Amino acid sequence: MKKLFAEFFGTYWLVFGGCGSALFAAGIPNLGIGFAGVSLAFGLTVLTMAYAVGHISGGHFNPAVSFGLWAGGRFSAKDLLPYILSQCAGAIAAAGTLLFIWSGKTGNVIDNTKAGAFASNGYDKFSPEGYSMISCFAAEFVLTMFFLLIILGATDKFANGKFAGVAIGLGLTLIHLISIPITNTSVNPARSLSQAVFVQGEPMGQVWLFWVAPILGAIVAGLIYKNLMQKTDNE
Amino acid sequence: MKKLFAEFFGTYWLVFGGCGSALFAAGIPNLGIGFAGVSLAFGLTVLTMAYAVGHISGGHFNPAVSFGLWAGGRFSAKDLLPYILSQCAGAIAAAGTLLFIWSGKTGNVIDNTKAGAFASNGYDKFSPEGYSMISCFAAEFVLTMFFLLIILGATDKFANGKFAGVAIGLGLTLIHLISIPITNTSVNPARSLSQAVFVQGEPMGQVWLFWVAPILGAIVAGLIYKNLMQKTDNE
Amino acid sequence: MKKLFAEFFGTYWLVFGGCGSALFAAGIPNLGIGFAGVSLAFGLTVLTMAYAVGHISGGHFNPAVSFGLWAGGRFSAKDLLPYILSQCAGAIAAAGTLLFIWSGKTGNVIDNTKAGAFASNGYDKFSPEGYSMISCFAAEFVLTMFFLLIILGATDKFANGKFAGVAIGLGLTLIHLISIPITNTSVNPARSLSQAVFVQGEPMGQVWLFWVAPILGAIVAGLIYKNLMQKTDNE
Amino acid sequence: MKKLFAEFFGTYWLVFGGCGSALFAAGIPNLGIGFAGVSLAFGLTVLTMAYAVGHISGGHFNPAVSFGLWAGGRFSAKDLLPYILSQCAGAIAAAGTLLFIWSGKTGNVIDNTKAGAFASNGYDKFSPEGYSMISCFAAEFVLTMFFLLIILGATDKFANGKFAGVAIGLGLTLIHLISIPITNTSVNPARSLSQAVFVQGEPMGQVWLFWVAPILGAIVAGLIYKNLMQKTDNE
Repeated sequence: MKKLFAEFFGTYWLVFGGCGSALFAAGIPNLGIGFAGVSLAFGLTVLTMAYAVGHISGGHFNPAVSFGLWAGGRFSAKDLLPYILSQCAGAIAAAGTLLFIWSGKTGNVIDNTKAGAFASNGYDKFSPEGYSMISCFAAEFVLTMFFLLIILGATDKFANGKFAGVAIGLGLTLIHLISIPITNTSVNPARSLSQAVFVQGEPMGQVWLFWVAPILGAIVAGLIYKNLMQKTDNE
Repeated sequence: MKKLFAEFFGTYWLVFGGCGSALFAAGIPNLGIGFAGVSLAFGLTVLTMAYAVGHISGGHFNPAVSFGLWAGGRFSAKDLLPYILSQCAGAIAAAGTLLFIWSGKTGNVIDNTKAGAFASNGYDKFSPEGYSMISCFAAEFVLTMFFLLIILGATDKFANGKFAGVAIGLGLTLIHLISIPITNTSVNPARSLSQAVFVQGEPMGQVWLFWVAPILGAIVAGLIYKNLMQKTDNE
Repeated sequence: MKKLFAEFFGTYWLVFGGCGSALFAAGIPNLGIGFAGVSLAFGLTVLTMAYAVGHISGGHFNPAVSFGLWAGGRFSAKDLLPYILSQCAGAIAAAGTLLFIWSGKTGNVIDNTKAGAFASNGYDKFSPEGYSMISCFAAEFVLTMFFLLIILGATDKFANGKFAGVAIGLGLTLIHLISIPITNTSVNPARSLSQAVFVQGEPMGQVWLFWVAPILGAIVAGLIYKNLMQKTDNE
Repeated sequence: MKKLFAEFFGTYWLVFGGCGSALFAAGIPNLGIGFAGVSLAFGLTVLTMAYAVGHISGGHFNPAVSFGLWAGGRFSAKDLLPYILSQCAGAIAAAGTLLFIWSGKTGNVIDNTKAGAFASNGYDKFSPEGYSMISCFAAEFVLTMFFLLIILGATDKFANGKFAGVAIGLGLTLIHLISIPITNTSVNPARSLSQAVFVQGEPMGQVWLFWVAPILGAIVAGLIYKNLMQKTDNE
């Protein structure tokens, strides 16, 4: 139960901090934090919570991470569903809080005909820079695959594991530095779902890609790491 | 006594570095550091002082942190008042130094009818982007609550505690990345008080919110962490 | 074999993340990540992969690094060729993936008459800010030399080695902060080759400099570190 | 002798990286790294070299740091002169290299009537934003004092010392985030001297302030830390 609370609060923070920085602070003229600031914010949500509750739940905060760790032989199948439900609940609670605070400024209303509305993810005309569905799928697949290679490698028992929170958090920053213009960056099905729930319209109809591509990428990473790269005790 | 000196200098640095970067460097055309640079500066004041004097005083530098640690069972009630007095003294001394240096440029005069004057916090028409009092209260409450969850988690005896200074400092950076446009970001009653003391006017009248919301958020975090997430020795 | 997979994926990530952030996100008006964001991205590719696969292959991801470690007496000559081939294969595979994704937006076509096209390196009229060949050679030489001094020093058995991944990754960020305007920053022959392979034209004809200068700088660093700075056991 | 080589190369890197990023990359329209990028660069020169050669020389790279450590009882008086000479030699060699590379672009010529020319420090009309001499003196004094408090605290035997390189390096970043607009940021007499040597004119005449204020601030920090904050073995 403590694990599920930890996943709930961790994923809440990921969405509140990452999507919140995008909503409140990215586009302000001259002083705004831009895509680089949002990238840093997403990564720091994970870095901070990894050190805060990693010792409680392992610090997934992302259904694709849970799937990837399962494929890599580090997480049991029976825990997948409760973890993912906690993550989605935390993400949706955070998006609701964001909507409440954000609405406290005149003129802040969700327009679901625009790419990236309320920090939602999307492809084709809902891609911030107009990338095709196939490009967006490939980007989400490759980026989540490498996110999991970082996670699996940095938490390997032969690795310098105390730095895993730094590597994983800043890895998420890096992923956002590359791909906000492509899909508004998901690599996390819970984060995509939570924003779409409040945006509805076509962005909700595109959420499938942000479940399928990241989870597939994560599973492939688990198989690659376990079979091609993981050291064994006798080596 | 060494503890109180450490809290004095630590909070001095938080205000001098965080508010100073905002005053001197945020808004310069083309080259200015913007909200992202100020966010980094606030976080680095805590990161640096956590490693410098954390072993002396625990490194609070913030009355809300002291209250939150007390609520979480990590700090004794009798130390609350001396810590908070040291923190406020350090913050006010820093704000005075900033005013002295900042006044050394022609035209630098505090205009307390403007939002964010002399790096002060505020809501409604004193919110940098015009957020309502209720939104500002909610933001300060949620952000301080998560700041304390990070602190309580990262310094837990079961956690990877040597990284606490990194997680806590960069957590404060993250909090600023989200919320400078909302309240100019407090989460720290001493930092709000010190700027208001020199600004006076309506910003001084709004300081109450930046004591009540952060301290409430911190206490709630202490109770949540202790009761729902903290591991016990037998687990 | 595991080592070569690790070098393949590590160098893939360096090119995908570093050159990808430049291609997709650097120049977007107002919100783009600029040279600072690209610098951070390059550094984080190395920081993340150093903690992920450093325990497998040592984490070179760069032919100049392999040469420098050899010159410093830390890497055997017989492993140079397989490492460099893996690095180049990974880099080229990443550049191909980038081209595939990047082409999914209308109008994204490589123009090899422009400096920095497809994140390629160059000098004279292919230097982003028009620096001469001799300046570009000197910059690549000095920067790779210091990159190797950082690597050799931070991984020294007397050093605080667990932080090597942080120092080396952020060292690459620093190198980019200085020199993107000079050569678009290489210090890595594999990263230069992979982009030139797809750009062709004059940028391909300039690739020689980005093999010669970095490898020379790396070898000089190996000799300096070993002979002038390295401590011995009796000291 | 190894120590002096380490100080030479470390200070070379500080000037080459910090002043180099300012010269080459700060002011480029749209994509430039701005004051925030330069701040990061200065800090990363120290972070990287602290982990690379800290185990050889202690990693001062700055005459004020050597004086402050002496005042704090951590460095012997007889080593002051050789350390400072090595630091100044490294800084001047780096500034010479920068001038050579920078001159490889048409139009790059030092104009010593402008504030901040060739990354020089200055006050009054040579302050980037026009701050008075007294403000500049106060800023350099306070900032160097806190830089030394961070150094003395983070390397204290009771502190979490492995993170000292992170805290000290990012502390220098923080100092630059605050004060580039005030003095172009020195806190390091060697860095001020090296640029002035090539700039000459009035900036050379102002170098005295960037020796006196930082060294005084450093010495005061040494006395404060040793007498008011340092723990003793019996505590």
